[in-house]
Amino acid sequence: MNSNGKFLGFNSNYDDSSVVFMGIPFDGTASFRPGSRFAPESVRSYSHHLETYSPYQDQDIEDISVFDAGDLIIPLGNTKNTLSLIETKTTEILSDGKKIFACGGEHLISYPIVKAYVNRYPNLHVIHIDAHTDLREQYRGEKLSHASVIKLVSQKVNPKKIYQYGIRSGEKEEFVWGRQNTNFFPYSLAKLKNINIAKTTPVYLTLDVDVLDPAYLPGTGTPEPGGVTFNELLEALLSLNGFNIVGADIVELAPDYDSSGASTKATSKLIREIVLLLSN
Amino acid sequence: MNSNGKFLGFNSNYDDSSVVFMGIPFDGTASFRPGSRFAPESVRSYSHHLETYSPYQDQDIEDISVFDAGDLIIPLGNTKNTLSLIETKTTEILSDGKKIFACGGEHLISYPIVKAYVNRYPNLHVIHIDAHTDLREQYRGEKLSHASVIKLVSQKVNPKKIYQYGIRSGEKEEFVWGRQNTNFFPYSLAKLKNINIAKTTPVYLTLDVDVLDPAYLPGTGTPEPGGVTFNELLEALLSLNGFNIVGADIVELAPDYDSSGASTKATSKLIREIVLLLSN
Amino acid sequence: MNSNGKFLGFNSNYDDSSVVFMGIPFDGTASFRPGSRFAPESVRSYSHHLETYSPYQDQDIEDISVFDAGDLIIPLGNTKNTLSLIETKTTEILSDGKKIFACGGEHLISYPIVKAYVNRYPNLHVIHIDAHTDLREQYRGEKLSHASVIKLVSQKVNPKKIYQYGIRSGEKEEFVWGRQNTNFFPYSLAKLKNINIAKTTPVYLTLDVDVLDPAYLPGTGTPEPGGVTFNELLEALLSLNGFNIVGADIVELAPDYDSSGASTKATSKLIREIVLLLSN
Amino acid sequence: MNSNGKFLGFNSNYDDSSVVFMGIPFDGTASFRPGSRFAPESVRSYSHHLETYSPYQDQDIEDISVFDAGDLIIPLGNTKNTLSLIETKTTEILSDGKKIFACGGEHLISYPIVKAYVNRYPNLHVIHIDAHTDLREQYRGEKLSHASVIKLVSQKVNPKKIYQYGIRSGEKEEFVWGRQNTNFFPYSLAKLKNINIAKTTPVYLTLDVDVLDPAYLPGTGTPEPGGVTFNELLEALLSLNGFNIVGADIVELAPDYDSSGASTKATSKLIREIVLLLSN
Amino acid sequence: MNSNGKFLGFNSNYDDSSVVFMGIPFDGTASFRPGSRFAPESVRSYSHHLETYSPYQDQDIEDISVFDAGDLIIPLGNTKNTLSLIETKTTEILSDGKKIFACGGEHLISYPIVKAYVNRYPNLHVIHIDAHTDLREQYRGEKLSHASVIKLVSQKVNPKKIYQYGIRSGEKEEFVWGRQNTNFFPYSLAKLKNINIAKTTPVYLTLDVDVLDPAYLPGTGTPEPGGVTFNELLEALLSLNGFNIVGADIVELAPDYDSSGASTKATSKLIREIVLLLSN
Amino acid sequence: MNSNGKFLGFNSNYDDSSVVFMGIPFDGTASFRPGSRFAPESVRSYSHHLETYSPYQDQDIEDISVFDAGDLIIPLGNTKNTLSLIETKTTEILSDGKKIFACGGEHLISYPIVKAYVNRYPNLHVIHIDAHTDLREQYRGEKLSHASVIKLVSQKVNPKKIYQYGIRSGEKEEFVWGRQNTNFFPYSLAKLKNINIAKTTPVYLTLDVDVLDPAYLPGTGTPEPGGVTFNELLEALLSLNGFNIVGADIVELAPDYDSSGASTKATSKLIREIVLLLSN
Repeated sequence: MNSNGKFLGFNSNYDDSSVVFMGIPFDGTASFRPGSRFAPESVRSYSHHLETYSPYQDQDIEDISVFDAGDLIIPLGNTKNTLSLIETKTTEILSDGKKIFACGGEHLISYPIVKAYVNRYPNLHVIHIDAHTDLREQYRGEKLSHASVIKLVSQKVNPKKIYQYGIRSGEKEEFVWGRQNTNFFPYSLAKLKNINIAKTTPVYLTLDVDVLDPAYLPGTGTPEPGGVTFNELLEALLSLNGFNIVGADIVELAPDYDSSGASTKATSKLIREIVLLLSN
Repeated sequence: MNSNGKFLGFNSNYDDSSVVFMGIPFDGTASFRPGSRFAPESVRSYSHHLETYSPYQDQDIEDISVFDAGDLIIPLGNTKNTLSLIETKTTEILSDGKKIFACGGEHLISYPIVKAYVNRYPNLHVIHIDAHTDLREQYRGEKLSHASVIKLVSQKVNPKKIYQYGIRSGEKEEFVWGRQNTNFFPYSLAKLKNINIAKTTPVYLTLDVDVLDPAYLPGTGTPEPGGVTFNELLEALLSLNGFNIVGADIVELAPDYDSSGASTKATSKLIREIVLLLSN
Repeated sequence: MNSNGKFLGFNSNYDDSSVVFMGIPFDGTASFRPGSRFAPESVRSYSHHLETYSPYQDQDIEDISVFDAGDLIIPLGNTKNTLSLIETKTTEILSDGKKIFACGGEHLISYPIVKAYVNRYPNLHVIHIDAHTDLREQYRGEKLSHASVIKLVSQKVNPKKIYQYGIRSGEKEEFVWGRQNTNFFPYSLAKLKNINIAKTTPVYLTLDVDVLDPAYLPGTGTPEPGGVTFNELLEALLSLNGFNIVGADIVELAPDYDSSGASTKATSKLIREIVLLLSN
Repeated sequence: MNSNGKFLGFNSNYDDSSVVFMGIPFDGTASFRPGSRFAPESVRSYSHHLETYSPYQDQDIEDISVFDAGDLIIPLGNTKNTLSLIETKTTEILSDGKKIFACGGEHLISYPIVKAYVNRYPNLHVIHIDAHTDLREQYRGEKLSHASVIKLVSQKVNPKKIYQYGIRSGEKEEFVWGRQNTNFFPYSLAKLKNINIAKTTPVYLTLDVDVLDPAYLPGTGTPEPGGVTFNELLEALLSLNGFNIVGADIVELAPDYDSSGASTKATSKLIREIVLLLSN
Repeated sequence: MNSNGKFLGFNSNYDDSSVVFMGIPFDGTASFRPGSRFAPESVRSYSHHLETYSPYQDQDIEDISVFDAGDLIIPLGNTKNTLSLIETKTTEILSDGKKIFACGGEHLISYPIVKAYVNRYPNLHVIHIDAHTDLREQYRGEKLSHASVIKLVSQKVNPKKIYQYGIRSGEKEEFVWGRQNTNFFPYSLAKLKNINIAKTTPVYLTLDVDVLDPAYLPGTGTPEPGGVTFNELLEALLSLNGFNIVGADIVELAPDYDSSGASTKATSKLIREIVLLLSN
Repeated sequence: MNSNGKFLGFNSNYDDSSVVFMGIPFDGTASFRPGSRFAPESVRSYSHHLETYSPYQDQDIEDISVFDAGDLIIPLGNTKNTLSLIETKTTEILSDGKKIFACGGEHLISYPIVKAYVNRYPNLHVIHIDAHTDLREQYRGEKLSHASVIKLVSQKVNPKKIYQYGIRSGEKEEFVWGRQNTNFFPYSLAKLKNINIAKTTPVYLTLDVDVLDPAYLPGTGTPEPGGVTFNELLEALLSLNGFNIVGADIVELAPDYDSSGASTKATSKLIREIVLLLSN
């Protein structure tokens, strides 16, 4: 009978895999529309109708070893415990010498993942692709918010090692802080191709799908008109080939807000390409 | 120009009102589909296309004084602070001698409201109309869950003073506990008409709209087929006329899951009828 | 190749038909959600997946002669000219000795139709099945409104000859006027079976589909929870068999508000049954 | 991490299970709207938010042994090979001494299943619950059609052993044939409670979810207004407790036509109840 | 508690404001799909999830004074009275020395607004950004139509003072007339950056959101593939900085036709940018 | 009364027409989401809101003679008979000296059409615009599949006469075969403008609408992010003006997956432009 319910039919066992795909269905701090919790299940389902072969990279995902670890069980309503759980699980997988590809869920999940990564890779650099700065000090008094995740990350990773692309929305203070502290490249992804990082530097990639214009991805919590096209994003990602990407996540797909399914298909395709990058 | 953005155009000021309508857009512990945060705004919008006159009670809501206090600002992702905020606000309104009609949001909001009410009405009885027992000890380790709300309430209100109607889903342990401890009337609402409470006893009514069959209200987080019809629910509610209802809430409308808008319209109409009951 | 684009494949020519099906895609006075203009095209499309045989009446619509005249071309934005056009067209078809089945569009279309009918049938009685009284004097200053249509009709037909069933929403003044002037049977359709009209009296039937509970028909401009079931409506209609129904309309289906298509299918089936009644 | 992707988390292995749940995502002869192919995956997903405990039967599905065999791989576009594949697989499972619960897909899948069952149970009786007669000789020239499935079954099972309930749509010829040949109980399910079958007689139950009124289940290929309520269907099914049900299927859920998810939830709940009946 | 129900929380009072935001929920002449009446309420709701800061203009809307006047109450079904009401209200606000930003509703609303503006600004120039010429003499006999609005405007403003951009659909006669009479720049917005108007000339900007490709804005009455991207439109609008824009409108958002909400979000963002332009 | 139910009101009779529009509502081999069967009816409906005038070609479709033949009646579930029926019908129309514009349905329909065309035009060249290679040997064992259609065509037309544009998805084997055998231009349509075919060579154009990015056309069975824009496709098609296009089809619109209707509108507009090309 049919496939195994894993993303793209990933059928390696854990021990043989160099990359672990992990679903994190957490959307507890969503400020506008929740629902990114449904992203992992949705991309798994759609991935069964996605080719395993990438013509862009001329590689087939069936030729590499990836393990789909399923989804973390989120203690609903408890943000702190959720973050702790993510950090613990990430640390465990890293200690097994594997790379992680995390599928959110909302953007706050990147914070505990990066915390675990920094322990293993003290020189970790972070590439942040997003429509929003995510540099708030707090959101309605809460420091643990998807709107603050990069500010939180900047407490673990020197902001000079953070590269932000595609940003087009935020408060004035966030733009000011970003321009002064991080490598801040708003609006487009064109500058990503010239990123000034050594090929050996360990890089963590965090991709908020709302960097795409809502035309290309309406299924997200906070759609932000004025974004990049799918091909612009794809081209930017492919330009990272050859860098030392040690981990990655993709966040903020909220599939129920796109009844056509195109948002989920786009995210599934991006995952395929990023997982191939992780495997190179 | 046009209306004031209040529910049904409620135009009394706070001081003159005996009933306060309060939106609580919190859905932080939703176990299946979040989105009840959008209920208060949605019912306000639809209420502008609802008649103020109830032919069922032959009363016009324009003839009574209700104040729409707007929505609480939820600290997203922080369940404890949210509950504390709700309790504080409820206590404040109660101390002004008013009744509260709370519009969720998810069912957990009833817990802090009841906590405040019990302080004022030590003999408070609770009528719980719902598809689910909501009697879990915890959900994924969390005691503060919409699936546990009546169990939490039973720590503040003797379960002998709790009346549960319409229940049709839960774990076996919940059904056993409910049958042994509360006044437990599963499946239908027929028994509500014979409720054995004195007319002077202070009653808090908590209505989870998923007691309705999804045919009548598909827009909810956890639709539960096998429920009551709208008219059965309406009839049951109208049978409470003459009781001393000192407060009420309606919870778990998730409007985005019903693109027809009928779920929101049904909830709006139920609010009109309950607010009239509160005003009698 | 395939069918002719007519309702249920009606393939009689005009001259041979005793009943004329006419689409009137007018929704110019809709007070909440417009879109009933799409009803005629929608029911034609769905009717191709409806059996022509009614097991309820044990009759096949292929055995009778009905002409689908297509849709009137509405002068958009001009209510007066629209009503005039409807009246003229109705008069023309009546003068050819035929019965009309009109498919709205909104409820205001019944007014010019009844005006034309009264000229031909001075003793016309009107059966009005609806969730709303439609007895307003005006709506935002406009006398020509779907919310006023029965009040307008009462200027042409003595309200003692008007029978209203299923009403459950309106302003207090409308309920008072209705109870005093028309044969006013709110909430249910049960009384329709005992209607006190001679079998020879000419009857015009106007059916607003929002009499159905939104569970059964969410696709309408002003859904009104608390309505009748499809089978209750069907049974009521079938009880009219043997009466002298000289014309009928069905109004207020707004198909875009029910993405499942069930509302359109229900309306199509009701049309089949009513057209069979017209042909008896 | 989380659940296993099986229906309701069925976690028995094949050898230990007395009941096998099998998805058959075939919708190749759908005459109106296809999409029942998505039903098996959809009910699996929703079942994770369904309680395993049935208060109706006071039994927990975790206490019985059921194996989820996944989905058959359908050779798309080839009806004959599909039916052959279903029959072979069914025969194989039956020869292992197990009962089958098949989740369509469309209704034609019942034909090859019944063919296999009759070989094992020569005295097989069939209970058919449906809105449609499914007694056509052919549909557009094709004998292998979901509209013909019971007629096909009647070639393998004497029509005197076929019991049809809830039927409300079909061609005149189908109604005539049904009344003359099968045990034909149109419109309601009330008669099912008095079914005249010995408790030891092997019974196959085939349930087309469109027997439900579209209010309760809009997500189906051919919605048919005028059907039964969810509770009426549930009550009818529960009345089969004690009979010798040796196999069952549920067909024609097309989840994409109900964006609220209520249709999928209803079907999931019906499956839980029927699988419990199979296990008694 | 929460915000005030105004667009972007505009909290100035009328007297202190130089710009007045006015909703005009009129869609009475829509030729295809109505529903633009829901645009003002929809953009208000979504604007609460829009940043007040524009990184494009490096300005925060909280730093300027804008008054949200709410919505005009439309006499439904009466086009003439509606237009008269709009003109009167516009004249009144202009006489108070304020600029107007009108949010339709359909495009016909621009006609009475421009009539009022011409009285105050005899040298008014009009910039028209749209997918359609809107140059019909009439539509089904009606001169007052959204398809005729620029032709109507040309009776009040010399067509040599009218600049049309982005046009890609219309009848041949409309294209011929436009090319001969107005400043007619079809298909793209590139020419807008070189517009030949003095910086002191009073300019009225009317923006039909269907100039955007439906990829970027599917929620409109008459989607017209082949349009501009959001960023192309944004860039064109920003190029108007420094001109003397004395009034503006945005029309034809029909939010119910985009269940993702992206169309409303895009329109909200465009309003923020245009209101900033008006305030400069 | 109103229009004739034909595409764009095509009102020529068969004999006078040089182009025949034929609907083929077949989706029997769809591998992901079926529903392209609804495309012909959907584009007919939407075409009534499309201008007959093309500003791109400065031509009005009312000035040419096109006959809408309606839809083929598909023997549901029988792929072979369906293909045979299409081939027969195509041959018949070709023998009457007419060109065909076929509106699918799924892509497999192109195979029998091309078979018929090759008989009449032995030197037929095929231009294939698509997101997918469609070069599979089989799909789940079936050679007759929409995923194999160009491979099937290559058995009738020398692959050197096949030109493929826009391809961005397939198995590795398909890409290898395509690059080796056909004129294979993946990803973009830019090369189409330089196509090396004589102006007199008979060309058949088959256009799978999923070549468009799902931003521009989400309503298709297998959306494939990373595609071309509407304007890029339009420009490519217009560049074929002057070539000897003897027939064409457009396939794989599945309108139910785009609730905004934009996909249907885009397809309708493309049909208008292609039919004009066929008429030149």
